[in-house]
Parts: sequence; structure tokens; C-alpha cells
Amino acid sequence: MKVFRIKHNGAIFYATFEEGDVFKPLLSKNGNQNAFPISECTILPIAVPSKIICAGLNYKEHARELNMDLPEEPLIFLKPPSSVIGNGGKIIIPAMSEQVDYEGELAIVIGQAGKNILPENAAKHVFGYTCANDVTARDLQKKDKLFARAKGFDTFAPIGPCIETAVADPNSLTLRTSVNGKVRQEGNTSDMIYSPSELISFISHVMTLTPGDVILTGTPPGIGTLSAGDSVEVEIEGIGILTNTVVKDESIRTPVQ
Amino acid sequence: MKVFRIKHNGAIFYATFEEGDVFKPLLSKNGNQNAFPISECTILPIAVPSKIICAGLNYKEHARELNMDLPEEPLIFLKPPSSVIGNGGKIIIPAMSEQVDYEGELAIVIGQAGKNILPENAAKHVFGYTCANDVTARDLQKKDKLFARAKGFDTFAPIGPCIETAVADPNSLTLRTSVNGKVRQEGNTSDMIYSPSELISFISHVMTLTPGDVILTGTPPGIGTLSAGDSVEVEIEGIGILTNTVVKDESIRTPVQ
Repeated sequence: MKVFRIKHNGAIFYATFEEGDVFKPLLSKNGNQNAFPISECTILPIAVPSKIICAGLNYKEHARELNMDLPEEPLIFLKPPSSVIGNGGKIIIPAMSEQVDYEGELAIVIGQAGKNILPENAAKHVFGYTCANDVTARDLQKKDKLFARAKGFDTFAPIGPCIETAVADPNSLTLRTSVNGKVRQEGNTSDMIYSPSELISFISHVMTLTPGDVILTGTPPGIGTLSAGDSVEVEIEGIGILTNTVVKDESIRTPVQ
Repeated sequence: MKVFRIKHNGAIFYATFEEGDVFKPLLSKNGNQNAFPISECTILPIAVPSKIICAGLNYKEHARELNMDLPEEPLIFLKPPSSVIGNGGKIIIPAMSEQVDYEGELAIVIGQAGKNILPENAAKHVFGYTCANDVTARDLQKKDKLFARAKGFDTFAPIGPCIETAVADPNSLTLRTSVNGKVRQEGNTSDMIYSPSELISFISHVMTLTPGDVILTGTPPGIGTLSAGDSVEVEIEGIGILTNTVVKDESIRTPVQ
């Protein structure tokens, strides 16, 4: 089931897209089961995460591409909730960076809170899966060593277009990133070093996961740079296509140097 | 004015502590100006931040202590909202770490949203200041290089006890961290490399700040390790004392290695 997050008449809810171009809310507290024409609805980013946890260097081929050893344990970092945009949103190249890269990724959306989750129980905590782009200011990542600035700019976490709740096997999905229609990354989640279930387990032994939290599971080989005017697509088999255009921030550089 | 975050009869609000041991809500939407006896109230952590942004290596003396160059720009990292506890809360030493350190810090609480804020306008975006402890699993910080795991465990962001809204000069405050009554860190915010206003400006050029967001401004020299049974206090002149005790997590290690 493909689930969208929708705003209609000020109300925000999860809904499915049905015949007749309508959004039908999932069973809500007040039992509202009406359907609303797409023309009356705004499609929102698929979640408002309390946190976005990302796995670094989680594809074997990508580690080889970078000539790096496979990590002994998952390597995690955070992106702030303020970096989220939805399908169709604009990625803004900030004035402080000269090199902003795409990184297409499978994202897990948490549905049920948990702490110290075992891998064999992880699936119970998953609402579904979506596409994500772990946009990264590569020059600032190299400069800072820490990733919070490089990966934390507003608009640097496109996620969407929907949450697929019925992924049969998240460990065997083709992922493809294209820029202006040309395929730049093509991988399969079977190449992951730590599977979605292992990542959920590892992360939940550090921090309590809550509904709406999003886990980005790492990127396959083929990362590259975006320019203003580009259109970037992250497509995952059975989930959908996340499309975002790229613009340049015209505001001033930070005055603090 | 010292502001506390209070729960009374299921309602959560900001309040001041007044004569007669009562909490008096700040003017609320429904104009409720009653006061409630402390015995009927629960004191909550001072904010529910959408994000916690921290400055690394922001005291000159601390950089010298570590024999490191002063950073050319602020170095920032994130702690997840799930790591927040309040005054009196327990810091839990996780099973995966052998070395958990305290880091006493001045924290800024954002009151008004902003993006690309200039240093000279930063004060307008501040709700107030509080004490914080940037608890850190030092062994995991060294291992990962990235800070998200080492600084992101549940309970690793004690903040409180209150928000002081009337700090005359945040650039000249004595900060003291004590463990079991013995002073371990003593510094002054005048030793910061980047002032609170400069940090707000820098961070807001990366990410939009929203009300309740918390900025940790770095730690002075004297960091050290905590053990189960310890009581750790972060005291800042004119703000108050943040006290937390330390316990050991008895749950299992992560099964993902």
C-alpha cells in the first residue's frame, strides 16, 4: 500500500491514492472515511521526523569505490528535521558550498516506538519504506570532518513520494539515481553491509526510535555533483520516484568566518 | 526571569516559580493566570527541541588543553531530541561504552524562528539561557570519528533546571561543573571562540532555527569521566544548577557487531 501525507482543509492525515484521482484517509480517530479530490489536497513530505538517522558507508561497492575498509559497526550520523523537503521540492545549493552532491538512498519510516530492538523484531517497528536523497555539501564535509553542517542545510533531506507499507523484501530492491534523465547510481539493497533490520537494531540500542523517525540506509556507488537547474530522481523498485530540482541560494554568505 | 516548563493536570506550560511555592503560568492563550502549588506540578525538561545543535571545540583554553588549533569556523554537530532529560534525571551509561564523560555547557534556547540571522540581530531570537551537559561516550567518539552515536544516547542531553530570560551578558558568565561536590570544570563564557550571537548566526545560515531549539555552546577545559553513582552538577552564574545522577544500563549489548 502506498501511503501519502496529505493536507486538506487544514487537516493533516495519511491517505491512499484511489481511483477517480482522490485521496482516501487511512482510518482516523474520528472515523472519517471520505475521499478528497487531489485538486483540493496538498501533498506533504511523508513524515515530520523527530530525528533522521543515517548510515554512512553502508554499501560494499561504495566502500570499494572510495577505497575504504568496511566498517566494523554501523557508522551513524544525524540530519536535522529542518532539512526535510518532499517530492517536487527544490534543493537549494547554499552560498557557503561549491560542491553539493546527490546520494540516493532507501529510507525506513518508523511506525512503532522502540528501544533495544532485536533484528528479528525490527520489521514490527517499520511503517514502510520510501526514497531519500542524502544531499551533501562535499567540500564542507571534507573541511569539517563532522557531517552536521555538510548534510544539515535546509532542503538537504528530500524524502518521498510516498511510504510503501508492503515491501516484500527490503534486502533486494533496485535503487537508481538519475540526473537530468541520465542514470548515475544503480545499486541493489542486497549490497548493503548492514541490512535495514540490523540498522534499526543498532540505532535503537543508542536512541529510542519514535513514529515518524526516518532512517537513511546509505548510498550505492556513483555519487556526483548537482548544479542549479538539474533535476534529480531517486527511484526504488516498487516504491516510486522522488524528483527534486536544484536551485542556487542567492542570499549572502554567513558573516561569521 | 527564571522560566520552568511545567505539567499540571495534563496541561503543559511555561511558568515562573513564585512566593508560596507555586508555579504561575506565563500568559497563555486562554488567559489562565492561576498559580498552582508545586506539589501538584511536574517539572519537565525546559524544552522539546526539534533539534539540538552543538558547537565543538569552542573554548580557547579547552583547545589548548587538547593541543588543537582553533577552528577557522564554528564546528557543529547534532544531538537527537531523544537524548534530552531534565534536572534530576538520570544519565544512563550505555552497555556499549566504557568511558562516558561530562561536558558542562551554556545552552541557548531559541524563542523566535529565524534563518540567515545576523549576529547583531541574534538576541531577538533568544528565549533565554540554561545549563546543559553534553554527555559523551568518549571511547565511541574516538572510534566512530562521527559524533552521533557517542553523543546521541538516550539521557545524554541533560538541560535545565530553568530558562533564564534576563541574562545581562551571555559573554561573561562563570560556568562550573562538579562531580560529587568536587569542582572539575571552571570557565567563563568570555573564553569562547565564537560567542552565542555568532553561533546563532552561523547555524542559522545552515538550518532554520525554530522555537524550542537548543544550541550547546561548547565546553571549557577539565572534562572527565563519570561512574555509576556519581552526581554531576553544571552551575552557571545567574541561571542555576543542573544536577543529574549517573546509573549503569543493565540491558544487553547490541547484538549487531
